[in-house]
Amino acid sequence: MTQAPPSDIPAPMEGHGAYNRSSRVQAVGIAATLPLLEQAARTVPISSGVEPVVIADYGSSQGHNSLAPIDAAIRALRERLGPIRTIWVVHTDLPDNDFSALFHTLEADPASYLRRDAAAFTSAVGRSFYGQILPTDSVTLGWSSWAVQWLSRRPAAIPDHVQVAYSRHPAARAAYSRQAAADWETFLAWRGRELAPGGRLVVLTMALDESGEFGYRPLLEALYATLMELVEDGSISHEEVFRMAIPTVGRSQADLLAPFVAKGSFAGLSAELLEVFSGEDRFGSDFERDGDSGAFGARWAAFCRASVFPTLASSLDGGRDGPRAVLLDERLEKGVGAAPQPMTIPLARMLLAKSRS
Amino acid sequence: MTQAPPSDIPAPMEGHGAYNRSSRVQAVGIAATLPLLEQAARTVPISSGVEPVVIADYGSSQGHNSLAPIDAAIRALRERLGPIRTIWVVHTDLPDNDFSALFHTLEADPASYLRRDAAAFTSAVGRSFYGQILPTDSVTLGWSSWAVQWLSRRPAAIPDHVQVAYSRHPAARAAYSRQAAADWETFLAWRGRELAPGGRLVVLTMALDESGEFGYRPLLEALYATLMELVEDGSISHEEVFRMAIPTVGRSQADLLAPFVAKGSFAGLSAELLEVFSGEDRFGSDFERDGDSGAFGARWAAFCRASVFPTLASSLDGGRDGPRAVLLDERLEKGVGAAPQPMTIPLARMLLAKSRS
Repeated sequence: MTQAPPSDIPAPMEGHGAYNRSSRVQAVGIAATLPLLEQAARTVPISSGVEPVVIADYGSSQGHNSLAPIDAAIRALRERLGPIRTIWVVHTDLPDNDFSALFHTLEADPASYLRRDAAAFTSAVGRSFYGQILPTDSVTLGWSSWAVQWLSRRPAAIPDHVQVAYSRHPAARAAYSRQAAADWETFLAWRGRELAPGGRLVVLTMALDESGEFGYRPLLEALYATLMELVEDGSISHEEVFRMAIPTVGRSQADLLAPFVAKGSFAGLSAELLEVFSGEDRFGSDFERDGDSGAFGARWAAFCRASVFPTLASSLDGGRDGPRAVLLDERLEKGVGAAPQPMTIPLARMLLAKSRS
Repeated sequence: MTQAPPSDIPAPMEGHGAYNRSSRVQAVGIAATLPLLEQAARTVPISSGVEPVVIADYGSSQGHNSLAPIDAAIRALRERLGPIRTIWVVHTDLPDNDFSALFHTLEADPASYLRRDAAAFTSAVGRSFYGQILPTDSVTLGWSSWAVQWLSRRPAAIPDHVQVAYSRHPAARAAYSRQAAADWETFLAWRGRELAPGGRLVVLTMALDESGEFGYRPLLEALYATLMELVEDGSISHEEVFRMAIPTVGRSQADLLAPFVAKGSFAGLSAELLEVFSGEDRFGSDFERDGDSGAFGARWAAFCRASVFPTLASSLDGGRDGPRAVLLDERLEKGVGAAPQPMTIPLARMLLAKSRS
C-alpha cells in the first residue's frame, strides 16, 4: 500500500519570515527568468479602459523573492501605461502561508513596488492555485516561480526516500508521475481561465535536465541518511519516516510540453518559449572562493529547512508543532550540512500566452 | 509627559482564530446594521461593463463576522447583476492580522460567500486603513464594522485607566479626542478616494450614547481593578500599567458628523444616515435566563481577551509574547469575570455615499 490519504497536502514555507531569509538559491533562478517577464510586460495586450491592470504572483510565499520580478514587470508596464493607471498586484499562496510576513515585506522593504510606484496596490489570496482563485479573464500578467513543482498532495508514500526522484520504488514513481501530469494540467487550466485575452504567464520551476537528473543529489542523500540515523537511534519511528515525502517534482521538457502536444494549445494557452537551464549553485561559488565548508553546509541546510522541513515534520506523530519537530529540525540541519559537495540545480523557465479571443 | 511614542500602534485581534470564536457581542451590532448594507447594495450605481464589482471589508479581522454582511451584500447585488458578473471581495486589516484564519474561514465555513456564489472571489490586504490601500474609484460597496473605533496609534498615556472614556486626566482625554477626530477624517478621506463614483460605505462603530456614556462600564472597571491588584502584588510594575492603553474611542453623533458640517460633504462623501443605538447585551440576556454568573463572566472576559488583551500585553516589558503575558492574560480573565453586571453597548451605524462625479 503506497496510497497516502487524500488530505495529505504539503505544508507552506517555514513561517515567521524564515523563508524570506533563506531563499538565495531561488533568487538565482529568478534573476535568470526576469528577462522573460519583462519581455512579456512590454508586449502583452493591455485594455484601453481605466480599470486596474492585474499582475498575479502565483505562489508568493512571504514575498521577498517576488519583489524583483514584480518591480521589473511594473517598470516595463509603466513605459506603456504612464504613471496614473492602477496596477493591482495579487500574491497567492496556501492559506497557512505567513501573510503577515508578506505584508510587512511589501510595506517596509525598499525594493517593494509599494514604495516605488504610487499607483500600484497589493493584495493576497490564500487559496491553492489548483483551483480558480482569481476572476475569469482578469489577469494581464502572471508570474509563478518555485511554486508549481509542489504537487497538490502526496499521491503515495515513498518507501525508500523522501524525494521521489531518488526512489527506486516503481509504484511510488508512477503515482508521483501521474500526479505531476495531472497537477500541471490543472494549474494550466485555471490559469487559462484567469488570464485576460492575450495575457501572459511566466513560470519558473524545478526541472529534470536532459539526462533526467533532478539535482540537489548530495543534499537529498544527506537528508535521507540523517533520517535513517534518527530511526537507528530511536528518535523517530520507521512509520514516521515512511510517511515522510517531499511532494515536489522536477518536470522534463517533454513533461512540461505534454499538454500542448495534441492540439498545439491547452486551455486557451500556448507555450511560446520553454528552456531547461542550470541554476548556478551560488553557495558552491561562495565555497570555491572562501573554502568555508561550514558556511556552505549551513546555507544549504537553511535552504532545505525553509522550504521542505515543515512538510517533513508534519509527518511526525504530534505534527509539526510538537516537541519532536524541533529535534528533527536540528538533526536534519546538522546532517545536511555535514558533507558539502557541489549541487546541480535543473530549472525550467516558460512563457505561456493566452489566445486573444 | 503623556506623549506616547509614535510607533505605539494597536495590536490586531487575538490570533489563531480566537477572535472568530469570541465575537458574539459584535455579531449583535452587525445584525442591526445589515439592513443598511442591503439597502445600499440595492441602490448603489453599478457600471455597465464587465469588470469586477468590488466590495471592500475594512477591518475584517479573521472573517467570521464578515460572512453574514458580505453574503447579504452579494445576494442583494446578484438580484441586479445576475449570476455571471464577477464580485471581488477585499478584506483588509493590519499586517499582523491572522490572515490564515481568515482564508480558512472563507474556504470552510458553510456561510462563506465562496461556497455560495460561483462568481465571487476573495482577497486580503494587510495594510492600515489610515492610508489609501485600494485603487482610486474602485470600490462599489464598502463595509466596516467594529474597526474604526481603533485609533491609528495611542496618542498619549492614560495615567488613571486603560480606557480613556473612564479617565479623569484632562491631557489624556484631550489627546485622545484630537486623535479620534483626526483619524476619523483620515479614514473618510481615503475611503472617499477609494469608493467608485456613487459608491456606498456602511460603518458600524463604538459610540457615545446621548448622555455621553461609552458603555461596558462594569467590564472596564473590573479590568482596571485587576491591573491594580497585579501592581499591588508585584506581578507587574506601575510603569507597565502606565503604558497600557486601549486605543479605542466611542464617538458621539456630533463627532461622527463633524467633518460634514462645514460644507455638507467631506472628501466627496456625504452622510446619508446616522443612528446611535444600543447594542443588546446578549450575555446579559443569557444570564437573565439561566442565572449562570460564571458563564456571563467568562463570555465577557473572552470578548475582552480576544479584542484588547493583545494590545494591553504589548505594554509589558518583554512584549506580548513574553511569559508574563500569559499571567496577565489569566488574571485579567478571572478579574473581569468576577462580578457580572449588565452592560450598555452604545453603537453607531452610518451610511456614507460618494458623489456621482
